[in-house]
Amino acid sequence: MAKQMIADQMDLLSVPTNGQAKTPRNGKATAQSMAAKQREISVSEFFSRNRHLLGFDNPRRALLTGVKEAVDNSLDACEEAGILPEIEVALEQLADDRYLMRVGDNGPGIVKGQIPNIFGKLLYGSKFHRLRMSRGQQGIGISAASMYGQLTTGKATRIISRTGPRRAAHYYEIQIDTTRNKPQIVRDDEVEWEHGKGTQVEIEMEARYQRGRQSVDEYVRQTAVANPHLTLRYTPPGGKTVVYERSTKEMPPEAQEIKPHPYGVELGVLMKMLQGTPHRTLQGFMTTEFSRVSVRVAKEICEKADLRPNSRPKSIAREESDRLFKAINATKLMRPPTDCIAPIGEALLLQSLEQNVDAEFYTSTTRPPAVYRGNPFQIEVAIAYGGAIDTEGSIALMRFANRVPLLYQPSACAITKSLIDTDWRNYKLSQSANALPSGPLVVMVHMASVWVPFTSESKDAVAHYDEITKEIRLALQECGRRVGEHIGRARREAEAVRKKDYIAQYIGHIAGALHEITGDSDRKTRELANNLKGMLERSRS
Amino acid sequence: MAKQMIADQMDLLSVPTNGQAKTPRNGKATAQSMAAKQREISVSEFFSRNRHLLGFDNPRRALLTGVKEAVDNSLDACEEAGILPEIEVALEQLADDRYLMRVGDNGPGIVKGQIPNIFGKLLYGSKFHRLRMSRGQQGIGISAASMYGQLTTGKATRIISRTGPRRAAHYYEIQIDTTRNKPQIVRDDEVEWEHGKGTQVEIEMEARYQRGRQSVDEYVRQTAVANPHLTLRYTPPGGKTVVYERSTKEMPPEAQEIKPHPYGVELGVLMKMLQGTPHRTLQGFMTTEFSRVSVRVAKEICEKADLRPNSRPKSIAREESDRLFKAINATKLMRPPTDCIAPIGEALLLQSLEQNVDAEFYTSTTRPPAVYRGNPFQIEVAIAYGGAIDTEGSIALMRFANRVPLLYQPSACAITKSLIDTDWRNYKLSQSANALPSGPLVVMVHMASVWVPFTSESKDAVAHYDEITKEIRLALQECGRRVGEHIGRARREAEAVRKKDYIAQYIGHIAGALHEITGDSDRKTRELANNLKGMLERSRS
Repeated sequence: MAKQMIADQMDLLSVPTNGQAKTPRNGKATAQSMAAKQREISVSEFFSRNRHLLGFDNPRRALLTGVKEAVDNSLDACEEAGILPEIEVALEQLADDRYLMRVGDNGPGIVKGQIPNIFGKLLYGSKFHRLRMSRGQQGIGISAASMYGQLTTGKATRIISRTGPRRAAHYYEIQIDTTRNKPQIVRDDEVEWEHGKGTQVEIEMEARYQRGRQSVDEYVRQTAVANPHLTLRYTPPGGKTVVYERSTKEMPPEAQEIKPHPYGVELGVLMKMLQGTPHRTLQGFMTTEFSRVSVRVAKEICEKADLRPNSRPKSIAREESDRLFKAINATKLMRPPTDCIAPIGEALLLQSLEQNVDAEFYTSTTRPPAVYRGNPFQIEVAIAYGGAIDTEGSIALMRFANRVPLLYQPSACAITKSLIDTDWRNYKLSQSANALPSGPLVVMVHMASVWVPFTSESKDAVAHYDEITKEIRLALQECGRRVGEHIGRARREAEAVRKKDYIAQYIGHIAGALHEITGDSDRKTRELANNLKGMLERSRS
Repeated sequence: MAKQMIADQMDLLSVPTNGQAKTPRNGKATAQSMAAKQREISVSEFFSRNRHLLGFDNPRRALLTGVKEAVDNSLDACEEAGILPEIEVALEQLADDRYLMRVGDNGPGIVKGQIPNIFGKLLYGSKFHRLRMSRGQQGIGISAASMYGQLTTGKATRIISRTGPRRAAHYYEIQIDTTRNKPQIVRDDEVEWEHGKGTQVEIEMEARYQRGRQSVDEYVRQTAVANPHLTLRYTPPGGKTVVYERSTKEMPPEAQEIKPHPYGVELGVLMKMLQGTPHRTLQGFMTTEFSRVSVRVAKEICEKADLRPNSRPKSIAREESDRLFKAINATKLMRPPTDCIAPIGEALLLQSLEQNVDAEFYTSTTRPPAVYRGNPFQIEVAIAYGGAIDTEGSIALMRFANRVPLLYQPSACAITKSLIDTDWRNYKLSQSANALPSGPLVVMVHMASVWVPFTSESKDAVAHYDEITKEIRLALQECGRRVGEHIGRARREAEAVRKKDYIAQYIGHIAGALHEITGDSDRKTRELANNLKGMLERSRS
């Protein structure tokens, strides 16, 4: 305790004034002059200088990232509150390189006191400290978009939110004090608002709007595909409003919050949990702070670790924790519960794909839940083949994580890698070495998890965990086989038609020759020809 | 001011107790129940869950990242203090998947009060808030290594540091309180230490040691290549100590700290600087807080922006800042000063490469300094060709940023991309489409800058800025041309030798034939043959 206090006091001293520093002799630094320069770096300062890590590295991507973060939050809020989401996205060009993005929802609204922190403080949110599937997870996204807007235009983020028709609609203008990572309230008013409930955010930013791959248009379209319960109105700059109507009124199954699974917990985290628990016995701690630890299992673990089930968690020493950790990992445990993840489902995936892609064959699969590092996850794949799909070049791959389309960094993503590593020639598709297959194929891959391991804060690519790539590969293989069967069937049918046509050309001649040999009447010859045709039909059908 | 206070008060309330939350009806969340769950996330919690972003995603890479962060700090400290660096790196295997890393230096040491924060607090350091070339820049590295060790082993990081032979050597054991991102001091002692000055850090971690590409061995070797003034003793697990002796006693030129260049400053940052400056006139602000703004230039900018040079910076409104920002970018300014970057230099690069690679041809180039987003940077390339270099497969590429070898994520790096985008067939090397050239080539590329834009916190790959890739390409082309000339010369020489040998075979016969025709003496014939040989030599040399 005393030591902790010392550390705290030192922390207060951690931004020394320049007066403390001795002038270095001969211009070189000394330990003392260097100490005087040590400072705390606020997380906002860090990310404002490293904003490419958050997806704000160029004006085009910034526009997409801003929209994506706002829509993620709207969808999460609606689903958590059990409201069928209706979202409006509008982009307006203000100058050559300046745009206004507006995203509004019919969600539960945000209570007044929370608005400034949610939009004006990085690393603030409700989703980080729980294990539950959601789009946002880090508490960075929307405040980073605010910060980017402020950095590039100097303008404050404007928010309107209302938690019910009989409550006031609050209007805020907020900036971020990046030195302290705190919201600065520029305006705070009650306003008239036509919506009874919901939140709307407006951010002005340096941006570029451009159609095509990796555009806001594409993001909006794919979001509609992965969220069939969503109605989305989208107005591109200077364009007409496009409405993506929901195709189902059924909300996704509600994802439950779960306790961590013991297999995914590291020694250091276990020790921290032991120190922080309110439980007075090891057994109570084990059975309530983890999932899948029954009283029987807790006793088994304690025995293996040579610890008493009724020992006090706080009094467990480092070496004992180490034994406990090893005992946990040497004990057979049930897999984590999986009601914490809500896949889209094979039927809705198929329906979505059919609505959005004009093909001749569709198939989908939802894998059973699996686990990486103690985190449950589930992989889904849907494939459309043939029809109006472009046959030139590589196939179209749509990647999703927790129903959010991933548009950037495809080559860094475990989904792309799994697709490349699958041998599509087994399924009658052509594929060069280390490349995506080619042909008229649209592939949709969805990873749903309580914690998607992204390769960067911008959340564009899934990291390479063996357990994850394996599941993706299995799902791709399952759908791939069906596509291969379809292609095989289609080819056989085409071949049969070709042969039949070929033989049919000769039926007249054969009948004629028989007529000459047998001397039958013309009618008999026609009958014979018809019989031959009939046999041909039957043999090939 | 009043508004800021409100924000501060709300911040105090930002971790609400559960008592504040209303129980949601029908189990669905409401704005109120959601507000109760909003919490601040500490940067340590964030990075401990996202530690793959910092380079700690698997045990093998974790070992490398830990060593790298410690060596970076040691080298920075030595150079800043003007001390020729002597660094010791030792790895010790403690269990199957557990290693102890120890890195010690002869640097200036760390003053006692700073030790806990430097090793036990993320986003803390002296290098973030200044523009000056250094290896570390974010204040995350070594404390992240501490945190990883603690997470995976529960053990504290052990530090010894001493700022001079007549001062005490301080020994600390430190852990990170990840919930608050603060150091916890486990032990704090004065100890006997054989070194008069310096710092040593020991971290125990879950790790894997493996030789080859991306290994600690390779990192150490490349670090010696890029830092010819460094003596490095390296002891691999269970192995013999390898000593990389320095090849020069000359310290790298001292990199100066610079003020930001006006071209690299964004509108939001400019506004923040205007608010925060102690200067009382716009002109004073412009000339002292930026580089390359003379009184004349400041006046020119003010005139263009329709602002008075003696207006108070704090009183400049948003619209006026916007005008100022546009005026700055419409005014011709000198490029930033470049004494803030210290390239390795063509001569030392060549010498390093010659010492480390056995080739037949070496060349190097250091480009003049250039600027991206207001940040000065400089590109250097050195190439070794032929000799004992493996001719099979792709070439060997060594990437460096501020003298630090980059071993991971080559495909995400602007250096690799520039190498692939260069047409090496122009330089008589073979190269497939979208691939590295192949042949007996070792290429070393170094980017030196006051701020290297990395693609992730683990600092493994340089982000794609057009200005940077252009400079890399120009440097590669320059060296490439020389390699091409060398290859051409070597081929011509080989060809000439071949032809000469071919003709030489016939000289005797020709001389003999002449002898028969002219009937000259044998001596004359020999003379003739020698003359012919002489002519041949002269014609081909």
